Amino acid sequence: MTIRVPRRVLIAPSGFKESLSAESVAAAIGAGVRRALPGVRVDLVPVPDGGEGTAATLVSATGGRLNPVTVTGPVGEPVTAHWGRLGGAVSSIAIVEMASAAGLSLVPRNRRDPGATTTHGVGQLVAAALDDGVDTIIVGCGDSGTCDGGAGALEALGARILDAAGEPLGGHGGSRLVRAARLDLSRLHPRARDTTVVVAGNPHNVLCGPAGVARVFGPQKGATPEQVSQLDAALDTWADVLMRARGPGPDLRTASVGGASGGLGAGLAGGLGARLSSRFDALLDSGLCGIDLDRRIGKADLAITAEGSIDFQTPRGKVPAEIARRCAERGVPVLAIAGSLGRGAPAVHDVGIAAIASIIPVPMPLEQAVAEAERLLTDAAERTMRMVLLGGAVSARAKRSRRTTHTNRPVVGRATPPLPVDTPH
Amino acid sequence: MTIRVPRRVLIAPSGFKESLSAESVAAAIGAGVRRALPGVRVDLVPVPDGGEGTAATLVSATGGRLNPVTVTGPVGEPVTAHWGRLGGAVSSIAIVEMASAAGLSLVPRNRRDPGATTTHGVGQLVAAALDDGVDTIIVGCGDSGTCDGGAGALEALGARILDAAGEPLGGHGGSRLVRAARLDLSRLHPRARDTTVVVAGNPHNVLCGPAGVARVFGPQKGATPEQVSQLDAALDTWADVLMRARGPGPDLRTASVGGASGGLGAGLAGGLGARLSSRFDALLDSGLCGIDLDRRIGKADLAITAEGSIDFQTPRGKVPAEIARRCAERGVPVLAIAGSLGRGAPAVHDVGIAAIASIIPVPMPLEQAVAEAERLLTDAAERTMRMVLLGGAVSARAKRSRRTTHTNRPVVGRATPPLPVDTPH
Repeated sequence: MTIRVPRRVLIAPSGFKESLSAESVAAAIGAGVRRALPGVRVDLVPVPDGGEGTAATLVSATGGRLNPVTVTGPVGEPVTAHWGRLGGAVSSIAIVEMASAAGLSLVPRNRRDPGATTTHGVGQLVAAALDDGVDTIIVGCGDSGTCDGGAGALEALGARILDAAGEPLGGHGGSRLVRAARLDLSRLHPRARDTTVVVAGNPHNVLCGPAGVARVFGPQKGATPEQVSQLDAALDTWADVLMRARGPGPDLRTASVGGASGGLGAGLAGGLGARLSSRFDALLDSGLCGIDLDRRIGKADLAITAEGSIDFQTPRGKVPAEIARRCAERGVPVLAIAGSLGRGAPAVHDVGIAAIASIIPVPMPLEQAVAEAERLLTDAAERTMRMVLLGGAVSARAKRSRRTTHTNRPVVGRATPPLPVDTPH
Repeated sequence: MTIRVPRRVLIAPSGFKESLSAESVAAAIGAGVRRALPGVRVDLVPVPDGGEGTAATLVSATGGRLNPVTVTGPVGEPVTAHWGRLGGAVSSIAIVEMASAAGLSLVPRNRRDPGATTTHGVGQLVAAALDDGVDTIIVGCGDSGTCDGGAGALEALGARILDAAGEPLGGHGGSRLVRAARLDLSRLHPRARDTTVVVAGNPHNVLCGPAGVARVFGPQKGATPEQVSQLDAALDTWADVLMRARGPGPDLRTASVGGASGGLGAGLAGGLGARLSSRFDALLDSGLCGIDLDRRIGKADLAITAEGSIDFQTPRGKVPAEIARRCAERGVPVLAIAGSLGRGAPAVHDVGIAAIASIIPVPMPLEQAVAEAERLLTDAAERTMRMVLLGGAVSARAKRSRRTTHTNRPVVGRATPPLPVDTPH
């Protein structure tokens, strides 16, 4: 009986929000895998999703440099944000992490008014990258605390937003945009037009309408139903203003990624001519940011992904779903480990994740799970790897059996209701 | 690439104490396994451990009958206990579950005085089985709340315990035994001598001394250090009395299983000539109680065992360790699922359990885990089975690879410290 064990395991997790960076998650899983199978090669690919930690992940992956900049935060107070200059073959690329300048975690709970928060600091980060002479700026979107259609960012880069009387709007945030009539780009940062700007966002995010950012994300950013309607109307006006300034092109109200980070995508597309890109295409694809993911997937016998919470939302474009999609193209089996397996978690089997595991070994409060996440992850990865190895032994044993039946097949996709089981005898 | 999946899975769990019977655990796991692999045969073998649920498990496994009897409980109040008459080929065998008449869960917390609680009700159950005309009585030990050396059980069967003046001791419990001088068996139940009595207990349990029941279990049954010493001395005296009544034979102070259920083993050995037997030998071996476990293990491609809590104590003779031992003899891979994975859980790898999993999907309080244990078990069994099937796919993929290295082997036994992992590149 020969049992072949994996020679090479790709470990491609997301970070665990408010707990561990993607790098820490990958390292913790790798340590557990090596405990179960010391000779295995583990290939660590912490996966950025555009949100918090994205710049650090890409800088680390490419050997680049993270640059701190003090900027105006989302509620007007100074914050230390950062952008990254990538290294190696992609050293002419900058990654701007919008969440570091205008993320939801920078907005105190008692000041969560998405009509008032600003992306001004994001524009300051873009300006810093332009000043540094990069060719390409990727603006990573995700975890934002703003809904200003990128107005603040454009103003920080020299644009002026004028009302019907030709006067600057003044103030901050998205609500005021209901009075916007014209965008004056004459004083824009001198390097802005010569530099490629790519907005990396969730392709499901659009600026206006029933699926627009005000309606989908406004409530979780602190908006009342009335504020949501006002904000949606203001962003509709703002889309008109942006498109007049830009000239012919796609409708920014409904363009994919236009709604990224409270409309930052649409703002940068209209004001800077930025390209709107699905986040994983921009962040992971070969060359652009230095993570040669697909080639590395192809070399693996097994891929392990992870997310803080796996639930019914995971198949909708979260990191594990993206990894599973890419693994499926190359026939690489993939499993996912989660900080918590929430409602609807088995739906991930539909997108190609063959098996899932939780890191929680015993009943415990959330606070403890967060505080001990690293250790729990390593232990869970060891358990998971041992289960995978056991599966190889079971397969080898089953192979020797004389009879096989055609009904004896694993379920493809989601769980089906159980058939009756044998009774004890 | 051919992936062989298991045709037949043996599911041999313990019950989850204070939550689910072994039958319910087995059924819940079976349902989850079938969700992942609908065509598989699952062979359910709920495993009794001598304690709570043992009679129900064996009666159910053999098609026998559970008989309720109102007896004197451990603190003197009436309780409804039960014994089982097995069915089928073993219908002349009775199983007496001592915990149903004198278990710790029948002792209110404020009355936990192991010097006073009595096995009187256990003797009443034995008497009921004798009256029913069985050939063999197996007394299942475990989860006891008593420490009376079986004195109460013998009295319930007609024995008299006399002091130095030849007067009956009176009273209840183990503390009074310091005054015991002679055991009068002249009035014993008439069928007692013609019936084989087997005590099924933990082989590590002895009556007296440093590893004796008073010292090991007295504290958890509510004894103070002073009470422990007095009780140990009383049981020492009692061992003398028992051995004088019995005649030549092994030293009941140190006989394996003599300490089972607070010395019930020694009491029944001395007073009834009962055979002291390791619980799994008595409860599981072919023929005796109807669970033809080893043959069923031999037919399986995979065995799944389970326990409410898996921790450093599990290798010391708990159900999963026993299942692993038997599976190892037949080369059947075995995994374990736990309600909780406590301190030292990976030690179970040393006794042949290849992989372990917890049922807890998200941070949650213990009460919720207990209340929802059945659903959590089924979900966890599905996840586990999917991981095992994934392992088969990984093994098949690894097989196609060109290079293999001798360092690429799974760890045998316990986890070793991790080697450094590859850095991201």
